[in-house]
Amino acid sequence: MSIEEMLKDAADYIRAHDDFLILTHVNPDGDALGSSLAAAHIVGQLGKTFTLVSDEPIPEKFRFLPLADRFRQPGDVQREFSHVLTFDCADRKRLGESGALATGNATILNVDHHATNDHFGTYNVVDTKAAATCEVVYRLARVLPVEIGKEMATCLYTGLLTDTGGFRYSNTTPETHRLAAELLSRGVEPYPIADRVFETITWPRLLLTREVLSTIERDDSGRIAWLCVPLEFLHRTGASEEDVEGLVNYARNIDGVEVGILFREVPGGKVKVSFRSKYVVDVGQIALAFGGGGHARASGCTVEWTLEESKRQVISKVKEVLVP
Amino acid sequence: MSIEEMLKDAADYIRAHDDFLILTHVNPDGDALGSSLAAAHIVGQLGKTFTLVSDEPIPEKFRFLPLADRFRQPGDVQREFSHVLTFDCADRKRLGESGALATGNATILNVDHHATNDHFGTYNVVDTKAAATCEVVYRLARVLPVEIGKEMATCLYTGLLTDTGGFRYSNTTPETHRLAAELLSRGVEPYPIADRVFETITWPRLLLTREVLSTIERDDSGRIAWLCVPLEFLHRTGASEEDVEGLVNYARNIDGVEVGILFREVPGGKVKVSFRSKYVVDVGQIALAFGGGGHARASGCTVEWTLEESKRQVISKVKEVLVP
Repeated sequence: MSIEEMLKDAADYIRAHDDFLILTHVNPDGDALGSSLAAAHIVGQLGKTFTLVSDEPIPEKFRFLPLADRFRQPGDVQREFSHVLTFDCADRKRLGESGALATGNATILNVDHHATNDHFGTYNVVDTKAAATCEVVYRLARVLPVEIGKEMATCLYTGLLTDTGGFRYSNTTPETHRLAAELLSRGVEPYPIADRVFETITWPRLLLTREVLSTIERDDSGRIAWLCVPLEFLHRTGASEEDVEGLVNYARNIDGVEVGILFREVPGGKVKVSFRSKYVVDVGQIALAFGGGGHARASGCTVEWTLEESKRQVISKVKEVLVP
Repeated sequence: MSIEEMLKDAADYIRAHDDFLILTHVNPDGDALGSSLAAAHIVGQLGKTFTLVSDEPIPEKFRFLPLADRFRQPGDVQREFSHVLTFDCADRKRLGESGALATGNATILNVDHHATNDHFGTYNVVDTKAAATCEVVYRLARVLPVEIGKEMATCLYTGLLTDTGGFRYSNTTPETHRLAAELLSRGVEPYPIADRVFETITWPRLLLTREVLSTIERDDSGRIAWLCVPLEFLHRTGASEEDVEGLVNYARNIDGVEVGILFREVPGGKVKVSFRSKYVVDVGQIALAFGGGGHARASGCTVEWTLEESKRQVISKVKEVLVP
C-alpha cells in the first residue's frame, strides 16, 4: 500500500467517525506533542470531539502549543473510547497507561515515521522517510482537506523543528525545508518556538553544568579535553542521570580539541567514560580497547578504576592514538 | 532599478572582465565568508582568476569552507586591482585595509543585504529583504548562469544558516527555507556545518563561562536569576569583552525564570547591567529607571555602585515589577 493510499484510508476513517481518543508515546517530545495536537486541530475543525491523553504532564517548554492545555492524564478520564488516533508511537506499549483507555475492539489509526513501527493499528500511516510524524500529519491535513491555520502550523512546525534538531540532523531533507517554508507562510514565528524548545534549561541541569565545567582540563597539545562527574555532583545538584547527557560536548566543542571525554562515577566503584571526537580520531576503537564500543565520533566504555586512575589510563591511551 | 535589473548588470560586469579582487567586511562572519567564497566559485567556474583578501585570518570554524584556504591578508598581496567584487559590506570603510588594494578608478560590484548599505559600488545589488547576502549571490549565480555544485552550495548554505541563527531569527522567511531546500538538494550536509559554526567555543570563553556560572543565584520565587562578572574574571581567563556576550541567557533560559540579569564590573567603579526577559516583564522600562534603555525583552544600563550594591538595588527593583 502506498503512503497516498494509507492517507486516503486514514482520511476516510476520520471523516466517518467522532469522539476520538488522541494518544502519543510516553515522555512525549516535540514531535509527539506537535503531531497529536495538530491532529486535535484537524478533528476539531471537522466539528468532531476529541480527548487528548498523555501519561505525563506536558513539559513546561511545550505548554505554549495551541490546545496543549487540553491534555489530560489517564486517571482523569473515566471512560473508554472506541475510536483512537495515535501519533509518533512505534508500538502499543509505548502508549503507556493511556493505551488502556481504548476499548478491547477499538479501531486505531496509527500515524508515525519510526522504522521500528509494528503497524499495530487498524489503519496505519507509517512513512519512515519522513523527518517527523508532523510531516505525515501535514499530508493528512492536505488530503482531508482541512485548512492549516497558524495554530495547527505552529504544532506541525514544532515537531519538525525538534525531530531534526533545528534542521541540523542528517534526517533533514529538501522536503523538510519545503514544509518549513509552507508552515512559515501560514504565520508561524520561528524565534519564540526555537527559543522555548531548545534554550530552556532546568535549574538542576544548570547547577550540574556549573559543577561539571569546574572540572574542565585539557592536555598540553590542546587536542584532548575532559570533564568529570563525581557521584556527589548529582546528589548535590538534584540533577538526574539524564542531565549528564550532552555535557561531554563542552569538552569536544572547544576550539582546537579533537577528542572530548567525560568521566562519570557510577555506584559500585565504576566509571563510565564517554568519548566524542571531531574529525580524525576513531573513538569507537579507543572505547573498544577498554571493553566498550560505539561509533567513530561517539563511543563509551565502563572501567573499574577510581576516577583518578580512569583519567590516567584513558587519557594516556587517547594521547597514544593522537600523537603518532 | 529592480533587483532583477541590478542582477543582470552585475552578471554582465562579471562576464566582461577578469582578474577580480574579492573582498568582504572586517571580522568576517559566516555570511561574509560564505558569500565571497561562493563568488570565488562563480568566477572560477567562468574560467576567470580571482584574489580573495580579508584583513584578518579566517576563523578556524569557517576554514572548512571550500576555497577558504585561498584567502590572503592585505600585506601578502603586492599589487592593485581594477575590478573588485565586495560582499556583505555596507560601506567602503568596512572593507578595512583590504579596500586599499583597489586602484583609485577601480570598478566595484557591491553585493549586499544591509539596509544601511550606501551603494558605494559602480554596480550595486543590494536586496534588503534578503535574509543573507548569500541569498543574493545565489540569485546572481542563477542569472549568469553558472552551475551550483555542492561546494558553492556549502558556502551559500553557511551564510544563510549563520545570518538567520540557524533558521530561527525573525528574518527567516518561507524564501529562506526554499533556498535551504534547494541547497540541500545540491548535496549540502547540514549537520557538520551547523556543528562547526554554532558549537565551537574558545578555551577562554569556556573558562569565562565556568567562572560566571559559579556566580548564578535566583530569588525565592525562582522568577529572577542573575550572574556576575567581576573584572578579575576577564583577567584570569584571558577572555575578551566579546566573550561576555550572551552569557546573560544562561540566567534567562532557566525553566521558570522570567528575568535574567548579568552584572558586569567595568573599570572606573561602574557596573554594566544586562537584562533579558521572557514573556511578561518590560525590562526596557527597568533599565530606563537606572538611566539606561533598550527593548522590552533585552535592555541594559550602567550604574555607579559596587557589584554588591548594584545587585541589591537592581534586583529589588525587578522584584517590585514582578510581584505587583
